[in-house]
Amino acid sequence: MHVWRVHTETQEWTREPVPPAWERLGGRGLIARVLLDRMSPVAHPLGPGNLLILAPGLLVGHRLSSCDRISFGGKSPLTGGVKESNAGGRTGWALTALGIKVLILEGRPREDRWWVLHLSTQGVRFDPADDLVGLEAQATADRLMARYGEHIAAALIGPAGERLWPTAGIQNLDKDGVASRIAARGGLGAVMGSKRIKAIVIDPEGGNPPPIADPAGFRQARKTYTQALMAHPQTQTYADYGTAAMVLFCNQLGGLPTRNFSQGRFEAAEAISGERLREMLLARPNAHTTHACMAGCAIRCSNVVTDPRGFFVVSPLEYETIAMMGSNLGLDDLDAIARLNRVANELGVDTIEVGVALGVAAEGGLWSFGDAVAAQRLMEAMRTNTLTGRLLGQGAVTVGRVLGVRRVPAVKGQAMAAYDPRAIQGTGVTYATSPQGADHTAGNTVRAQRHRPPVEEQARLSLKAQIAMAAYDTLGVCVFAGFGFAKVPETIPQLLRARYGWEVSDDVFQQLGRETLRLERAFNRAAGFSPAHDRLPEWMLEEPLPPTGARFQVPEEHIQNLFRELEAA
Amino acid sequence: MHVWRVHTETQEWTREPVPPAWERLGGRGLIARVLLDRMSPVAHPLGPGNLLILAPGLLVGHRLSSCDRISFGGKSPLTGGVKESNAGGRTGWALTALGIKVLILEGRPREDRWWVLHLSTQGVRFDPADDLVGLEAQATADRLMARYGEHIAAALIGPAGERLWPTAGIQNLDKDGVASRIAARGGLGAVMGSKRIKAIVIDPEGGNPPPIADPAGFRQARKTYTQALMAHPQTQTYADYGTAAMVLFCNQLGGLPTRNFSQGRFEAAEAISGERLREMLLARPNAHTTHACMAGCAIRCSNVVTDPRGFFVVSPLEYETIAMMGSNLGLDDLDAIARLNRVANELGVDTIEVGVALGVAAEGGLWSFGDAVAAQRLMEAMRTNTLTGRLLGQGAVTVGRVLGVRRVPAVKGQAMAAYDPRAIQGTGVTYATSPQGADHTAGNTVRAQRHRPPVEEQARLSLKAQIAMAAYDTLGVCVFAGFGFAKVPETIPQLLRARYGWEVSDDVFQQLGRETLRLERAFNRAAGFSPAHDRLPEWMLEEPLPPTGARFQVPEEHIQNLFRELEAA
Repeated sequence: MHVWRVHTETQEWTREPVPPAWERLGGRGLIARVLLDRMSPVAHPLGPGNLLILAPGLLVGHRLSSCDRISFGGKSPLTGGVKESNAGGRTGWALTALGIKVLILEGRPREDRWWVLHLSTQGVRFDPADDLVGLEAQATADRLMARYGEHIAAALIGPAGERLWPTAGIQNLDKDGVASRIAARGGLGAVMGSKRIKAIVIDPEGGNPPPIADPAGFRQARKTYTQALMAHPQTQTYADYGTAAMVLFCNQLGGLPTRNFSQGRFEAAEAISGERLREMLLARPNAHTTHACMAGCAIRCSNVVTDPRGFFVVSPLEYETIAMMGSNLGLDDLDAIARLNRVANELGVDTIEVGVALGVAAEGGLWSFGDAVAAQRLMEAMRTNTLTGRLLGQGAVTVGRVLGVRRVPAVKGQAMAAYDPRAIQGTGVTYATSPQGADHTAGNTVRAQRHRPPVEEQARLSLKAQIAMAAYDTLGVCVFAGFGFAKVPETIPQLLRARYGWEVSDDVFQQLGRETLRLERAFNRAAGFSPAHDRLPEWMLEEPLPPTGARFQVPEEHIQNLFRELEAA
Repeated sequence: MHVWRVHTETQEWTREPVPPAWERLGGRGLIARVLLDRMSPVAHPLGPGNLLILAPGLLVGHRLSSCDRISFGGKSPLTGGVKESNAGGRTGWALTALGIKVLILEGRPREDRWWVLHLSTQGVRFDPADDLVGLEAQATADRLMARYGEHIAAALIGPAGERLWPTAGIQNLDKDGVASRIAARGGLGAVMGSKRIKAIVIDPEGGNPPPIADPAGFRQARKTYTQALMAHPQTQTYADYGTAAMVLFCNQLGGLPTRNFSQGRFEAAEAISGERLREMLLARPNAHTTHACMAGCAIRCSNVVTDPRGFFVVSPLEYETIAMMGSNLGLDDLDAIARLNRVANELGVDTIEVGVALGVAAEGGLWSFGDAVAAQRLMEAMRTNTLTGRLLGQGAVTVGRVLGVRRVPAVKGQAMAAYDPRAIQGTGVTYATSPQGADHTAGNTVRAQRHRPPVEEQARLSLKAQIAMAAYDTLGVCVFAGFGFAKVPETIPQLLRARYGWEVSDDVFQQLGRETLRLERAFNRAAGFSPAHDRLPEWMLEEPLPPTGARFQVPEEHIQNLFRELEAA
């Protein structure tokens, strides 16, 4: 495995040995390490000093179920801090097939010409891409597959990334060639756009899966893990309902964001539930209630939504989108939500950030909650790049600023996901403290809330989840694969030993997670973050959440001391 | 002298003794002390936890020439840090006549009703002001004078403050009842608006100038100072040309911001020069080339601009506005600039922040440099509160964000003033490091550049100027009075001893300035600022400034170490 460095201004590239300090990191942890080692933390996120990093996780490359995720990283144009955002699809696997441990894009071209970065066993090539400029995501993907073959992997940006919107993600082809697997959060699509790269095409032909030091040991650990995963009841739930199963669960907890986080239960939650979605998809031609985003996934939490005539609308429709573009906007029609999602995917924007921005915009008087036609019109304004559209493209905080709305649910510049922190307080601690900004994937505690843990437990729950997620994201493991690994945690050190021939201790998982958080916090400190930034927005501490009246009650000192022991180590 | 505390939600108020730690501070220094002692630095600037503070400087109250300035303070909605912004006019003097050392407005009403805060020898009263809502600044002033008498002092906000725009200032009546003396920078008008105070009316009737411990000593020091001020050649220059004398001087240095800081000389500088302005005003009925903003001022740097028929347009038209709304926008017509200034004053916004925002907007394609009609139309969009107008009302950084412009001349969220830091590097150090954000009044070094000091000297020049300005702003002394005090520095300790009967050392001026900066930096640290925020924007370090090709070359370690000795003391 090598480091591939590509300079986007000179178009020179090198294949370099992996520095020793990077060796035992991958994915999210490696991104933090590379950012600390190779860029100035005060560089402008859209200037020549930022890096765009693609790092497959440590376990990527062998089609371990749900373990082929690709991490994208850089300094976030949304938060101004460290950013890692990961996705499924083919990209991670294809990079490892070329022996790429990490791909680093440096610099920024001076000319306004666009490029496809083509990676293959032949190395790196810049292909002119001016003809792709302005194309939406799937149109871009189709053009790339026509040009380079159906077998390629690709990471690409839509118009939002070209326009440098901090809501822009990077979309990856799924196993069916749909540009749906978006590394959505934190604006890394804009970083890619600033480097004038419309797409990174990876042609794995002639490549090989990375070598395995102990094939028998690897097979054995894999088998144990896969069986544990398949046996977990949650795996079947995800296959049947996808992430949308969360709608009624969160609604029951009183933590389903509704009308810009002004309520925690939505009167029409049933209408947008996973159960209703499944019913709808079962009745439609060409729809799928279950679908795998990457080859070999046993969970298959994805789905394919079609309209009543069977025409493709969007894939997948997930809980976060249903909540942030549904209940959070007062919308109760899954088809309307799917159409909003579709435009978001075509533009290449994060549905969480844009969903929250639309909620803030409704509160600011730009439109009315519950008006699906108006919501669709605003998405079209984004598409056509009007001033209103450009404003929405900046995300929730900027919309709140321009419209004079103080009730903006965001931390470190990034919008919260679909778990109101007043009802799901451990996740609130994660929002407040994660180096990534408000982000449920940095450490969600929603399942633990089923047992109504006391407020004194919430910080500990968050820390545990943050360490685990940082480790999974470093391994390239999907969060849902964690149901399997949690049952057979010994398989993680076993897989690492078997694949790499390393001596690793039994608590390597904990070590990876803790080290990743330490590195990320070090980058953020140098970039200008301080304890003052580790907090929920003030209004959210003042307002109780109807109908339960929940308040965020985690003591300030739990939050300020959360990482103390981890950082003292 | 007392502390007057007013709670804007309960409408309760108290008159309290001055805490010992506040006794020997006034104006800007006292504001920093009060913010540190009385609010949480992480409170939202527009939430109930922020304070609006009015603090006359230590020398205010006796009509010492150019020494009756009023400081406004709070946590800035523009920068998120400490903010002090001061103005001339009657307000400072009137507060001291009521024995008010500092007025602190706390809390925030829940109801959307508006109030006039009325201060007199009878104490504090909340008078309903719903009929004033939406009124522009002068209309508000006129209504207040009709209601409360021509003799009042008043600090008021225009529509911008009501709309909570972070470009909104607080306007004070000048000696002629014109609402022109704006505490412009940092959005304190929005803080006032968040507390639903349309105006603070101060009726000095029955009040008395604060007592003087040693009247003979005071008279003597005052005489020495006034003579030194009158004898200074700069005093006559300001009387003849006002601050506009700076246009050709800065142009000569190659530091006159032109077309969003893309050039340092403006081809039409002559057409907007102080000389041309004087000529124009001399030829117009009812215009004045010289005018005093407060009673007793010997400098009279203000002016009154009328149109060719003699109708009032604006007072004063100053250098900062001429540059930021003139050369910075490619506009070469003083009448057009005066009309932009007029709308800004009517709305109650900072012409620096809005001028820079318009420059960024031109760079972002919203209009074209040099098109005076388009510029006027955008000011009208601000007036009518369209989405475009609201965007401009957020200031330069937000405009840059929404329009995707990286070339935003701002530090800590606040736009630079009319001295390009590449040509006037000491002022660049001030922009980079001042706790106030980019602000020439925090320590301008433009005059020292006449001698072409080497780059190694620039940080020292900035520190010296920052300490001096922090001291003047704590004393309530106009920067231009500094020409006088610099000749007879012993008069400052003499005046303080004579007025208060304090024992103060001869270097009290230095002590006041240094203490003020220390307090401000302590507040900012707690509010979330770190060394990463003490820097010019990245693009400005990359681009040389035409036509001189000047670069900002002050070494990073000079900037990072600027306050080291001051803070170690």
